[in-house]
Amino acid sequence: MDTKKIISGYKKQGARIETAPRVKLRTKQDIALWYTPGVGVASSHLAKNPKEARQMSVKKNSVAVVSDGSAVLGLGNIGPYGALPVMEGKALLFKQLAGIDAWPIVLDTQDADEIVRVVKAIAPAFGGINLEDIAAPKCFEVEKALGELGIPVMHDDQHGTAIVVLAGLINAAKVAKKTLGKLRVVISGAGAAGIATAKLLSAAGVKDIVLLDRSGIIAPSRENLSPVKQELLSFANPRMLEGGLDEAMNGADAFIGLSGKGVLTAAHVERMAENAIVFALANPEPEIYPEEAKKAGALVVATGRSDFPNQINNSLVFPGVFRGALDRGVTAITEASKLRAAKALAALVPKPTAAKIIPDSLDKKVVPAVARAIR
Amino acid sequence: MDTKKIISGYKKQGARIETAPRVKLRTKQDIALWYTPGVGVASSHLAKNPKEARQMSVKKNSVAVVSDGSAVLGLGNIGPYGALPVMEGKALLFKQLAGIDAWPIVLDTQDADEIVRVVKAIAPAFGGINLEDIAAPKCFEVEKALGELGIPVMHDDQHGTAIVVLAGLINAAKVAKKTLGKLRVVISGAGAAGIATAKLLSAAGVKDIVLLDRSGIIAPSRENLSPVKQELLSFANPRMLEGGLDEAMNGADAFIGLSGKGVLTAAHVERMAENAIVFALANPEPEIYPEEAKKAGALVVATGRSDFPNQINNSLVFPGVFRGALDRGVTAITEASKLRAAKALAALVPKPTAAKIIPDSLDKKVVPAVARAIR
Repeated sequence: MDTKKIISGYKKQGARIETAPRVKLRTKQDIALWYTPGVGVASSHLAKNPKEARQMSVKKNSVAVVSDGSAVLGLGNIGPYGALPVMEGKALLFKQLAGIDAWPIVLDTQDADEIVRVVKAIAPAFGGINLEDIAAPKCFEVEKALGELGIPVMHDDQHGTAIVVLAGLINAAKVAKKTLGKLRVVISGAGAAGIATAKLLSAAGVKDIVLLDRSGIIAPSRENLSPVKQELLSFANPRMLEGGLDEAMNGADAFIGLSGKGVLTAAHVERMAENAIVFALANPEPEIYPEEAKKAGALVVATGRSDFPNQINNSLVFPGVFRGALDRGVTAITEASKLRAAKALAALVPKPTAAKIIPDSLDKKVVPAVARAIR
Repeated sequence: MDTKKIISGYKKQGARIETAPRVKLRTKQDIALWYTPGVGVASSHLAKNPKEARQMSVKKNSVAVVSDGSAVLGLGNIGPYGALPVMEGKALLFKQLAGIDAWPIVLDTQDADEIVRVVKAIAPAFGGINLEDIAAPKCFEVEKALGELGIPVMHDDQHGTAIVVLAGLINAAKVAKKTLGKLRVVISGAGAAGIATAKLLSAAGVKDIVLLDRSGIIAPSRENLSPVKQELLSFANPRMLEGGLDEAMNGADAFIGLSGKGVLTAAHVERMAENAIVFALANPEPEIYPEEAKKAGALVVATGRSDFPNQINNSLVFPGVFRGALDRGVTAITEASKLRAAKALAALVPKPTAAKIIPDSLDKKVVPAVARAIR
């Protein structure tokens, strides 16, 4: 579809979500109960029993989808108005896929402390906070500062991505007849998604993970590594590789692209081990197109796009994670919950093939399966 | 209805509003247009053309209903959870009465500067800001600081109340066969509502307005008057009255209660002029009950309650004000718009009687009439 058509479609549509009453106001009695004076009774009660807001108000089922627009899709720092269509789209998916009442909140600030203050200030009316498209390393700081908010806070670019990648990798390894613990995995991109994915794969038992950022392989010899990247080296790059993608790809079993279009060439794929796995997840233009990767010898190929097989997209994860958290009053999405969610998602494809390693995001089994994993 | 029944009703109900998709996601093509990759095109476009968010996103039709819970109904400072049922109820009315997508935002801060920062930060995704139940004098400061936000900001306790009181008074004066310019008006309560009402009545031509706060009549001789109350004296209390409600009520044509239950006695009403007008608007318990006021000689009596005739309630105003502002891209609710709105509301009752000075809030003519006044 061409750009002009999409923009005119959005203009014709206006908002993609709206509010809807859950009670009808037909008579003065309805107003007396659900507005004044009845609402005063509910207010007095919640002032004394604030925890019951989870039973008696929108807090029961609501999520704020919050972004500062500093890292929107592959588009970069395009600010709050640039972020708005994405956050509104996520709110749409939250409702359609998981019945969650999500509202987009895009911030006219990109300062980490200010983001934390604003989210803390608006938290009382929400049952959860989905952080989105906030640049690394700021996103780590913001998420950490919001850890004790009393409601679940998840930065989807990190953990949604990590969960869906792990789910895909579990099934891709089955197709390739390899075990997770023995995989050599290369992650291209050490932003929010790459770093969180490396951590979750490690927690799942993957022992040989090599990450690359714009300067090449993250290695102890690198000068001026950020604290977050230094911390990664406590488990990543066990063979102490140095250099660039050429060096990293020698004998690799799996490539996970969370970087940018065209980063991976056929020559890179040819350096990989037998039955190679290629996840080219950059959106909308992948690191390598599926056909080219296959031709160069890859066995299992996935992208982030809906127009190729094996779409590895966060929309398989975030609706179910918050559905589970809201239903069970979970206040933090733990590492154990993330691992369970990835395994549950993988298990929805009991006999994975090269063309089908991950369920479809419209598959109605996805949300309940992920939700059950969140405890 | 008893308190326990209301609370159990709210618990059974859970949220009173929810979100709803305005587009259907049935196929991969739907997702491609309304989520990824289509949403990236809309995002790039809005990053370059932020003003078009009013055409292409929730900003087109959304209002944040914001409170810090510092002055909730007549309940006082009961904090964000206490405020939540009221803000959610207003969001419900916004949708049902005016088709506006409003979302409750209750703040975990009561600091004026912080409220301003938070509202500025979250403004990009909203088409308007309805401030609510924020205590005086903080509310004046907050509203002023948000005057240049580029979207309409209205503190409903002030201006919603002022508009509906003026509308009621226009028709009550007709019933009493008096002209506005010659009325002696006593306003009991010099908080947000009392002060804004005094200003709007003055702008409408009422010349003799006497306000009272907890210490009595606001007069030049009073020590330690706040700047806001000193400013009032540039037009209020022209006869330089001193003392309390007894003194103020001598010969008064109209009493406007924006204070607390039982403030007005039959003896006070007996001191008033012929064909007296009594608006006892404290909620849920009025300054005087209608029957008692009538018995003491009042001709026209109104309350804020739905169970007596003449309900003078902000819900007659805020839905229409924001409907008009959103439809016309109005960025400030001017004094002229407020006066027009009050007159439009009054005009919906062409032949007012003592039992009917104001339209019903479920009357479908109310929102369009008020909306047309906002320019």
